[in-house]
Amino acid sequence: MEFKVTHRADGCRARTGIIKTPHGCIETPVFMPVGTQGSVKAVSPEDLTDAGATIILANTYHLYLRPGANLIRRLGGLHRFMNWNGAILTDSGGFQVYSLAKLREISERGVVFRSHLDGSKHLIGPEEAMDIQEALGADIVMTFDECAPYPADYDYVLKSVQLTSLWARRCMDRRKRGDQALFGIVQGGMYRDLREKSAGEIVAMQFDGYALGGLSVGEDAETRQRVMDEVMGFLPAAAPVYLMGVGKPEDIVEAVRRGVDMFDCVMPTRNARNGALFTATGRINIKNACYAEDERPVEENCNCYTCANYSRAYLRHLFMAREILAYRLNTIHNISYYCRLMSRMRSAIKDNNFDHFCLEFYELKRNGMD
Amino acid sequence: MEFKVTHRADGCRARTGIIKTPHGCIETPVFMPVGTQGSVKAVSPEDLTDAGATIILANTYHLYLRPGANLIRRLGGLHRFMNWNGAILTDSGGFQVYSLAKLREISERGVVFRSHLDGSKHLIGPEEAMDIQEALGADIVMTFDECAPYPADYDYVLKSVQLTSLWARRCMDRRKRGDQALFGIVQGGMYRDLREKSAGEIVAMQFDGYALGGLSVGEDAETRQRVMDEVMGFLPAAAPVYLMGVGKPEDIVEAVRRGVDMFDCVMPTRNARNGALFTATGRINIKNACYAEDERPVEENCNCYTCANYSRAYLRHLFMAREILAYRLNTIHNISYYCRLMSRMRSAIKDNNFDHFCLEFYELKRNGMD
Repeated sequence: MEFKVTHRADGCRARTGIIKTPHGCIETPVFMPVGTQGSVKAVSPEDLTDAGATIILANTYHLYLRPGANLIRRLGGLHRFMNWNGAILTDSGGFQVYSLAKLREISERGVVFRSHLDGSKHLIGPEEAMDIQEALGADIVMTFDECAPYPADYDYVLKSVQLTSLWARRCMDRRKRGDQALFGIVQGGMYRDLREKSAGEIVAMQFDGYALGGLSVGEDAETRQRVMDEVMGFLPAAAPVYLMGVGKPEDIVEAVRRGVDMFDCVMPTRNARNGALFTATGRINIKNACYAEDERPVEENCNCYTCANYSRAYLRHLFMAREILAYRLNTIHNISYYCRLMSRMRSAIKDNNFDHFCLEFYELKRNGMD
Repeated sequence: MEFKVTHRADGCRARTGIIKTPHGCIETPVFMPVGTQGSVKAVSPEDLTDAGATIILANTYHLYLRPGANLIRRLGGLHRFMNWNGAILTDSGGFQVYSLAKLREISERGVVFRSHLDGSKHLIGPEEAMDIQEALGADIVMTFDECAPYPADYDYVLKSVQLTSLWARRCMDRRKRGDQALFGIVQGGMYRDLREKSAGEIVAMQFDGYALGGLSVGEDAETRQRVMDEVMGFLPAAAPVYLMGVGKPEDIVEAVRRGVDMFDCVMPTRNARNGALFTATGRINIKNACYAEDERPVEENCNCYTCANYSRAYLRHLFMAREILAYRLNTIHNISYYCRLMSRMRSAIKDNNFDHFCLEFYELKRNGMD
């Protein structure tokens, strides 16, 4: 993997860049739709490409449990299995082990847990996380970390930082494939000195990129932005930075302003399946009766497949009738919205216009709320 | 609407033809995927076209209840509402009133029933069925009929034939639009003389096409074929014949052999959503463990999007994980299978080769069952 910063905004840390992967060049800042179980829910690979996605995230925990990482390896790896020729980033499985699995026991060795699917017992530690991710064959893989809950006291977070550094080293030692980039994850909760300690230790190991973990876990936006500001100062300017699990459009704008390059979140896809559609002037809920005869597309200036071909009235009907097509059309629009947001930010940065972009972004949002 | 017979098979009544509609020319024999609620479940209009569909069926009963026929009319008609530029046939609503609605009261005026959605009370008679279908704007609309259950005694079926003829006349009298073809429906249960009576009365009214109703209601294949043989003899050779609600691939082959031109059935779409996939050698259930690592497409010689891009192993995984994409990919294959079956029959008829086609069709099926 290569990363090159191509432009820097005036007056803030926002920047554009290009990540070269074995499956294409990724322009950053970039949003990665989430393909939890080897499919970005409700859409096809062609839908993703048409919506502007160049890289997706897949969940190691889910694929490890079903259909199994070795099965995917035997079938030629995840790209081939799911027919996606763009880039893939896999998380390490850590986050889902903490959030979905049962009976977790954490030790230096790793985490023993029971599957949320069938209760079967498993161990994933840094070595297993690397082996699984190498079997899946993503272009970018993540170190296995321990993500402290929020709130968590200083001692808990300190231990989590220590374990995360220990595991990061073991991930690096275990690494066998040269064609996969490996990103280290910075933990440290909301404690400045622990973030500095974690970043220092992780950066010293010289990963291909760095992720901000342990955010978007329940803290308020102000705290998140303060922590981001701090951590960004501890990271090398030459490496890509990935803010895990974030977030709302405005959270992404604020993170791009602070220099973050990569994002993932289930928000566009999950909201789509609940009928919530993103527009520049805010979210609309397609269930609302006011859309029953609304001939307009979801968003006037959107060039996605959904907006080019279907009215709000039809989308409302599909959703009310629980037609499967509703989930696909809604998802296509929301992913397009996110990808277009990123593309507009990249253009604004290149045009030395990012401040203006931000003003307009918030202005439209405010007007929409009226 | 125009219908032209283009070829006739030697030794049986199978024939090819072309139906000209305001939304394209339909080569017959043709299969019409079912788009119950203004969407062929799980697929888009482009998927349908790619799978080979040129005409779909939409259900008047469902669209009348939700989102409402007048709403669809105000939004430019069903083609525009659902973004489908191919042809559409709407049923009259009768069949669903009998099978889905509650508290039905049948009189000469029509049927009073309660909605299966919210229990609200409605009346649909021949006049309402025509008005609704004209509001929806399909290329081909159907008369409102009474479909006798099976088994039903002679007197019941006699009354149903009388009512069906009365209603057919009133449908024709109500007709306002000149751009929609109107098909009459022949009832008569399994009674030869009642079929003859019904066909005689319906044909005398000179509809644009004729449908065989009251079949595929529980009778065995032999009885169905006997009734078909009889009724086909009562119908004019110059009009298209539509066998409603049929059916399995072998049922369709047998009906084509007897001269039927048009078919609809939920089988390919519903089975797809249950993981049952059609192939020349029989149905496969994608859930089966034997497909877990099967790299082959569903069907080796199938050129559908699903078979061109995905393995059985991936389709099994999607289905087991209940991923929405599973329903779309399975549906695309099954509709492609049905459309290709029709296309192969058309070619065989044109090549004076239909008998050979049938032999091969059954031979492959038998081998697959071994």
